[in-house]
Amino acid sequence: MPTDTNEAPWEVVEQLVASRDAAGLSDYLDDLGPSETARAISRLDETCRNDLLILLDPRDAAEVIEDVSDAQAVELIEDLPADRAASIVDQMPSDEQADLLGDLDEEDAEEILREMTPDEARTVRVLMTYEPDSAGGIMVTEYLRYGQNATVEDVTRDLAQHREQYARYDIQYIYVIDDASRLVGVLPLRELLFAPHAAPLRELMITDPLSVPATASLEDLENFFDQYDLFGVSVVDAGRQLVGVVLRSDVEEAAADRTTRQVLGLSGIVGGEELRSMPVMVRSGRRLSWLSINVVLNLVAAGVIAAYQDTLEAAIALAVFLPMISDMSGCSGNQAVAVSMRELTLGLIRPNELLRVMLKEASVGLINGIALGLLLGGLAMLWKSNPWLGVVVGGALAVNTVVAVTMGGLLPLLLKRLRLDPALVSGPILTTITDMCGFFIVLSMATTMIEKL
Amino acid sequence: MPTDTNEAPWEVVEQLVASRDAAGLSDYLDDLGPSETARAISRLDETCRNDLLILLDPRDAAEVIEDVSDAQAVELIEDLPADRAASIVDQMPSDEQADLLGDLDEEDAEEILREMTPDEARTVRVLMTYEPDSAGGIMVTEYLRYGQNATVEDVTRDLAQHREQYARYDIQYIYVIDDASRLVGVLPLRELLFAPHAAPLRELMITDPLSVPATASLEDLENFFDQYDLFGVSVVDAGRQLVGVVLRSDVEEAAADRTTRQVLGLSGIVGGEELRSMPVMVRSGRRLSWLSINVVLNLVAAGVIAAYQDTLEAAIALAVFLPMISDMSGCSGNQAVAVSMRELTLGLIRPNELLRVMLKEASVGLINGIALGLLLGGLAMLWKSNPWLGVVVGGALAVNTVVAVTMGGLLPLLLKRLRLDPALVSGPILTTITDMCGFFIVLSMATTMIEKL
Repeated sequence: MPTDTNEAPWEVVEQLVASRDAAGLSDYLDDLGPSETARAISRLDETCRNDLLILLDPRDAAEVIEDVSDAQAVELIEDLPADRAASIVDQMPSDEQADLLGDLDEEDAEEILREMTPDEARTVRVLMTYEPDSAGGIMVTEYLRYGQNATVEDVTRDLAQHREQYARYDIQYIYVIDDASRLVGVLPLRELLFAPHAAPLRELMITDPLSVPATASLEDLENFFDQYDLFGVSVVDAGRQLVGVVLRSDVEEAAADRTTRQVLGLSGIVGGEELRSMPVMVRSGRRLSWLSINVVLNLVAAGVIAAYQDTLEAAIALAVFLPMISDMSGCSGNQAVAVSMRELTLGLIRPNELLRVMLKEASVGLINGIALGLLLGGLAMLWKSNPWLGVVVGGALAVNTVVAVTMGGLLPLLLKRLRLDPALVSGPILTTITDMCGFFIVLSMATTMIEKL
Repeated sequence: MPTDTNEAPWEVVEQLVASRDAAGLSDYLDDLGPSETARAISRLDETCRNDLLILLDPRDAAEVIEDVSDAQAVELIEDLPADRAASIVDQMPSDEQADLLGDLDEEDAEEILREMTPDEARTVRVLMTYEPDSAGGIMVTEYLRYGQNATVEDVTRDLAQHREQYARYDIQYIYVIDDASRLVGVLPLRELLFAPHAAPLRELMITDPLSVPATASLEDLENFFDQYDLFGVSVVDAGRQLVGVVLRSDVEEAAADRTTRQVLGLSGIVGGEELRSMPVMVRSGRRLSWLSINVVLNLVAAGVIAAYQDTLEAAIALAVFLPMISDMSGCSGNQAVAVSMRELTLGLIRPNELLRVMLKEASVGLINGIALGLLLGGLAMLWKSNPWLGVVVGGALAVNTVVAVTMGGLLPLLLKRLRLDPALVSGPILTTITDMCGFFIVLSMATTMIEKL
């Protein structure tokens, strides 16, 4: 359909929705590509988004849902009537169904599951029992499985019959099972090219194939694919029954999502992704929940300053340096937090290796503390022509840098042992400790030499 | 070989290196798995690491290099004599060769390239001309390509002959080229199962296949794989000659690496990854380079406090709140930075949509500013039983939260337009602006009502 090239994509979509042109809409979104579709949808108001998903046929609507980010998909599906949502979810691949429904409120998910095709619903309910970042949560259920007595000809015939359906599968291997659905072998698909037609799979297959339990963690899977140069691995349950296949690319994607959550967590975005298309009260509320904890922690640190008001009044120049000592120590500490989190992810340190991390960080902290202390102390001394001011400010920054760097290195390990998320929790705790400690050092030092300041 | 189970893996490795047991070492590292190997290597001293890589035969040494992280690999290779390094690099897949050599100093890389097998060196030199995060930098050169006149039988024979070699390839497709090496078609490997033996590929292939230019960016590739449900795509140069294949899993991996750099950048780790196995002076130096910029920026903000020393001396209670206002504004601003960076990555906003971001953030900033201002202002009022202190502190935090949140939302867009890395630069700039602004608001308000404080 002809469109004015000056119009933004969401304006075109709005017009197509308004004129109830389902075919035109489907074509337009197809051409738009996923990133532009996501962007256009984020610009529509709620009514228009709803109308759009109801206007499109469920298969096209499912494609839209797959185009947008997880957080957007949840927004879109939540606003739809359950029966409509169910018919759209029905059209999605099983692992994405499970991810999407897992992100919804339990009540909403249950309502949609009740409206879904019973078979689809059953598969998804099983997938939803696995942890999202486990082999069971990452695996796909679209793969090729045959009994061990099937012949090459049986397989070839099945492949030819289901060409269309299998075209979307990632097929490098066929998985071979016994009568009890237990995994007994794998066969690289290309081996079928060289095999006699009448040969049963059990004679061709690689026996005792590698597999991972459905409970394997994302770290386990990353290690597995680091060690073995494979594109997928079969997933078995406690009874060695084959339940799915984990693909290397899906493990990479899950790892990327985990890192994204770290970035967001480090910056104080909690409760999953925030998009600017979300209602302003939801965005404010989520950010405030984290900020208000920070206010309380800040008050604790500010209490130290309050306790030394007399010292501060007598040497007001110190007030200029307090925010600097707080900020610089926070920065030094955060660097150490980042290095520890990275080494934990790479498996280079274990949460119990506190001594090693402490020694490694203390030495960096000492060098940087001395460097920064000399710099700031020197400046303070020159500013007021008072060497004692330099000693107090520089000395405090030096000592506090050692504390901040060491604590920053240790915190992620300690939090990991307490099963807390280092990305979300390290920052506020670190700031509180280094602020309290920094303010205390500078103000107590100043109190002992108050006549000289 | 029998080993004491109480010994740490690196102690075993040390002993095996000391006893020059190349075979035992190779077996032990094979069983250890990549994550444990990386950890053990990070515990060895430089001499032992060198001896290890010289003791192992080049193929085994190459596997060790592939097991460890990129930063570790660079450390290991840099310390080796060029001829030894070259024989190890020779054994690696082409895309990893290019990544590793690209991470080395230009001089070191050139020395190694001169010592490498001429053929390998030529391929790597071409790969190294591409940007690391482009299709050319991400692609593999291990894939199946045949002329359009090759028959199904030719292909099957070639596959059978090179079974071993091809076992490591990710093969879903055969790429078909004309006499000038231009891509003319693709054929799903499984279609060979159904095709007559004498048929030439040109009759079976899908013509006009999808491909991406070697210069395509990582974002282009992410969009491509979002739009098309494929496991790989062919890469062509300016003359449409086929030069490689980009796999979906490698794009996912590159995206994960980019996010990791963001995490590190946000925390002030510059110049690539830092590992605790690096020399302490290198670690200190890199961290200090970022910290010293921060000191200077902090001094600018502290200058505002220095200018208002008289006000502060007259109302010393304000000194308690200055670090809090600085910290809380920084936190609020960083949340907005994270949301903008995420929306930029997802393609939901463009760097030029400043007005939209400003309005969306200003509204959140206003709500959160009022909430936080009332909270902190109320506490200040109660503490000193002085409503005016509450007005100054609460009012300043409220206004500064609006500034911080709006600036935080806009900064990543502005930095992107200036082609600066938002992850590395947003934090320090934001802190400086919000500190200056916050200190100015609170102290100038206080000055106008100094008798009441």
